Amino acid sequence: MSSSEFEIIRRYFTDQQSSRADVSLGIGDDAALLRPPEGQSLAVSTDTLVSGVHFPIDTTPEAIGHKALAVNLSDMAAMGAEPAWFTLAITLPDSNENWLTHFSQGLFALACEHNVQLVGGDTTHSPPHAPLSITIHIMGFVPEGQALTRSGAVAGDRIYVTGTLGDAAAGLQVKQGKLKPTVSVAKKLLGKLEQPTPQIAAGLALRGLANAAIDISDGLNADLGHVLTASKVGADINIDKIPLSDNFQSLKLTDDWQLAASAGDDYELCFTVPEVHEKEMRHRLDTLGCAVTKIGIVSKQKDVRWIDGAGKECELSLTGYDHFL
Amino acid sequence: MSSSEFEIIRRYFTDQQSSRADVSLGIGDDAALLRPPEGQSLAVSTDTLVSGVHFPIDTTPEAIGHKALAVNLSDMAAMGAEPAWFTLAITLPDSNENWLTHFSQGLFALACEHNVQLVGGDTTHSPPHAPLSITIHIMGFVPEGQALTRSGAVAGDRIYVTGTLGDAAAGLQVKQGKLKPTVSVAKKLLGKLEQPTPQIAAGLALRGLANAAIDISDGLNADLGHVLTASKVGADINIDKIPLSDNFQSLKLTDDWQLAASAGDDYELCFTVPEVHEKEMRHRLDTLGCAVTKIGIVSKQKDVRWIDGAGKECELSLTGYDHFL
Repeated sequence: MSSSEFEIIRRYFTDQQSSRADVSLGIGDDAALLRPPEGQSLAVSTDTLVSGVHFPIDTTPEAIGHKALAVNLSDMAAMGAEPAWFTLAITLPDSNENWLTHFSQGLFALACEHNVQLVGGDTTHSPPHAPLSITIHIMGFVPEGQALTRSGAVAGDRIYVTGTLGDAAAGLQVKQGKLKPTVSVAKKLLGKLEQPTPQIAAGLALRGLANAAIDISDGLNADLGHVLTASKVGADINIDKIPLSDNFQSLKLTDDWQLAASAGDDYELCFTVPEVHEKEMRHRLDTLGCAVTKIGIVSKQKDVRWIDGAGKECELSLTGYDHFL
Repeated sequence: MSSSEFEIIRRYFTDQQSSRADVSLGIGDDAALLRPPEGQSLAVSTDTLVSGVHFPIDTTPEAIGHKALAVNLSDMAAMGAEPAWFTLAITLPDSNENWLTHFSQGLFALACEHNVQLVGGDTTHSPPHAPLSITIHIMGFVPEGQALTRSGAVAGDRIYVTGTLGDAAAGLQVKQGKLKPTVSVAKKLLGKLEQPTPQIAAGLALRGLANAAIDISDGLNADLGHVLTASKVGADINIDKIPLSDNFQSLKLTDDWQLAASAGDDYELCFTVPEVHEKEMRHRLDTLGCAVTKIGIVSKQKDVRWIDGAGKECELSLTGYDHFL
């Protein structure tokens, strides 16, 4: 924590944001001292990004800084929690002030946007040729009993997703040279891959309305699967309803729903809501300017059925998400 | 978090300990939900251990599991905080159930001893030849205003350390073949290097008595230096008073105080206490069976003077701690 590298990171933070009032003691001692609000649960989560595994090795440091925090903020969104503080552990193959400067810019631009404060950290020099690795631990608040867990879905709930799916996966294929769209489309798809937007405001708006929620990091199929397993239910998904962006559709992929349903890294929310709350949910998310799409319904049978517009069940043949190794 | 590796770790935890009552929702959702006690500060800290940097690559998985948690618990001890929860992020070069089993045994034996619960985590497969890396984020409680910070030392405070110093550094030299003591001595020195004991009970006992505290991870010189810098004071240290174990003394090193004053990894506490609290402090730590030694006094001049039994100032020529790269 006392290394000069961490001082660089801290300096960038200090330059960019004033401190939160609930931080009694920030970076620089053996531990930070924080004051969680009374009557709320503390929501905590941790996620690691490794170069060459979670992002291509030629990703810019700004994008890495953004994404490392975004994936953690996304976990807060998926719980309906208000993010507050984070710690940062970086393992660097070599000391590089220029890299850290740009990394910090990406990281703290997003931190300031959500008023989350860096309260501790550690930088380590790894042996040569070791990959860059970033672990963020995020902490936030949610009123007791209002968290959006994975286990609350019940048969009859409507299944929704925010935004559109598949853009990040298409962006990866662009990066890998497998797809060659126009420059403008490529840029937008890559942006979704490298600089995902955590759906914090949507998560907060779903408190008291959604029965279950998760963020889509590993793909709709896998992540909806976690909700269904935890809730001991199944789902019928209308594949024609899976929301696809104009950019994604312009790629004219065969069976494009398959990529959108199986690929990860979009960091949209998937949630289930009882019919009685649908109107209020739509009103709240409309007010936020957050697009949502109903893609199906929670069922009693314990599996996922992918159904086309003609009512025919389709097989999802792409089941895993291609990481970067 | 959903990987099978993490399931192994979780299984070991679940087998070894019942849950804490203040964990509303543990591992398995997008975030854990925790209930910090009212009226207390939340103390948080994070530390990464990288193979070949923070421990020799041939360290046993049990010892790695122990040490990864111990260095984080030590930060809680240094704040006078009561540890409660932790998250764990592991980056593994390859999947190895046997390694994870032994790692978990070392980790959870220490976790159970201190009643701290694993509440979240992430395992990542790193590219081949990448080093093993472990990041733990620890959370604990301390009543408001009672934390032992680095910045509270004042001139006239007595400077104490717990236990003995230098054993871990000597253990490293044994491991490196630079020292060849008897098998029994070697085992004890190595034990101090590989399985340090976090001084949690001592940290709690120092609440309300010590003005400043730190744990000795980077060496007395460096860590006391952090306290003095934060407190804007200096120190006079009696080098003859630096506590050395019988095992360490049996090595008959030339100027052995130099190694004891500069080498890290002992994870003892160094703290300053006003004269008026010395008696009560000694009584409390005696009751715990925790040895403490007065090694000097906080001074107004802004540097550290190392003074021998004849009152002569000595130069500390070893100033950094040899890591393992």
